[in-house]
Amino acid sequence: MPQHKISPDSPIGIFDSGIGGLTVVKAVQAALPAERLIYFGDTARVPYGTKSQVTIRKYAREDTELLMKHQPKLIIVACNTVSALALDVVEQTAGGVPVIGVLRAGAELAAGRTRSGRIGVIGTQATIGSHAYTCAIQEENDALEVFPKACPLFVPLAEEGFIDHPATRLVAEEYLAAFAGKAIDTLVLGCTHYPILRKVIESIAGPQITIIDSAEAVASKAGELLAARNILNRGDEQALPHLMVSDLPQKFRELYRLFMGTELPDVELVGV
Amino acid sequence: MPQHKISPDSPIGIFDSGIGGLTVVKAVQAALPAERLIYFGDTARVPYGTKSQVTIRKYAREDTELLMKHQPKLIIVACNTVSALALDVVEQTAGGVPVIGVLRAGAELAAGRTRSGRIGVIGTQATIGSHAYTCAIQEENDALEVFPKACPLFVPLAEEGFIDHPATRLVAEEYLAAFAGKAIDTLVLGCTHYPILRKVIESIAGPQITIIDSAEAVASKAGELLAARNILNRGDEQALPHLMVSDLPQKFRELYRLFMGTELPDVELVGV
Repeated sequence: MPQHKISPDSPIGIFDSGIGGLTVVKAVQAALPAERLIYFGDTARVPYGTKSQVTIRKYAREDTELLMKHQPKLIIVACNTVSALALDVVEQTAGGVPVIGVLRAGAELAAGRTRSGRIGVIGTQATIGSHAYTCAIQEENDALEVFPKACPLFVPLAEEGFIDHPATRLVAEEYLAAFAGKAIDTLVLGCTHYPILRKVIESIAGPQITIIDSAEAVASKAGELLAARNILNRGDEQALPHLMVSDLPQKFRELYRLFMGTELPDVELVGV
Repeated sequence: MPQHKISPDSPIGIFDSGIGGLTVVKAVQAALPAERLIYFGDTARVPYGTKSQVTIRKYAREDTELLMKHQPKLIIVACNTVSALALDVVEQTAGGVPVIGVLRAGAELAAGRTRSGRIGVIGTQATIGSHAYTCAIQEENDALEVFPKACPLFVPLAEEGFIDHPATRLVAEEYLAAFAGKAIDTLVLGCTHYPILRKVIESIAGPQITIIDSAEAVASKAGELLAARNILNRGDEQALPHLMVSDLPQKFRELYRLFMGTELPDVELVGV
């Protein structure tokens, strides 16, 4: 049982290693417009994907503690790396508050959508190296075959705004060539930055491959969970998300626009 | 005056935000083979280049404190971002121990080499945004014209080992196009990762442009400073560098090989 009272008015806490989780904020806003969202982006310590498991688990605990101060009714782990390597740490730290990770949401959706039973997954080095998507997909159905591929340049290319750039296409062609001859029919975007590059990924993958966006998957799962527990906010006011970051770099405003498609609201700077 | 005794046997402390500073270790080893080198790479908090000045200055103090425990005779700031935004913090924390930053060393060498008086500088967003190279070069000679250009994708491309990759060439062509019509004759590699991509940068820049590698510049300046103070180590034994990192990610061994051209020696994991 959670240590604090939970009601439909309680906020949903969302965190990520940086700004990438804003694709999750955007998807949750679209699916559940009345919910109050509190987002923490650990911009001082981003990226997590290149760090060791010990460090990632420490950060996951601290990030969760930060959100718990706001007495959330649900915590969404928008960071694939944390979902892969430290979801248990988040659950322990969250007490009885339910926790959803992008990873399992994406894995469930992919397992439900594939027809050929052959699924590709792309993500950061740490997410892919953890084999967590493979495990999560095969927990859904152990007959499924999973083909993982780390794509470390996609995050910096997205953050540089190289959305339609020929260099992005070359890099994507090289990364996605890993799936040649694998006959996958489903490709999971296993990193919250990747929806930014969705068009180029989709055009190289081709129309026969279904793209699974974990951000959309987690938003839809959040709605189901809140409805089942009767704590869905059924109001009709739409609130701006409450944004917290651990550092406010020069490029933040620009990146916010890139991810959210709107101007940056007020941001709270917090220490970690 | 330093709080500890300094002798020719004292080590040289070198730090960087991550592994990039190993290009400085390599250059110092080549120039001063008898020196004992202690390197700290803040791999848990890399990169600094995308963070705010407040955060960078905090990290700079902590990194210097860590090296000071080893009673160095000299501290080399291998990180361009710290050299640009927090060299004063390092100097304060180092007490009387001399401090050399890659930035000033590179700026001095560039100012000495240019004939046309027109110098290009490439680096991370934070280094370029700080205008620190421009200031440092114009402090040498205020008639010099400086053309800075941020190249945020060069670090991830280097770390991905995309040394000769067509995508790297496309990205470099786009970044270096900023110097078209500027008639520069000298180009400063204002980030310790960039020597890894030196060949592609050099081939796009063309033979009429002199490339200034700040790592080589800082190594030569270190030798002059130690000789002038009579604390050069004139022994003939070559020691392996003592390596400390704040995190030991999966890719570290591979990156070490990429930067140093040798296998990874023992590494000490330290907390920050």
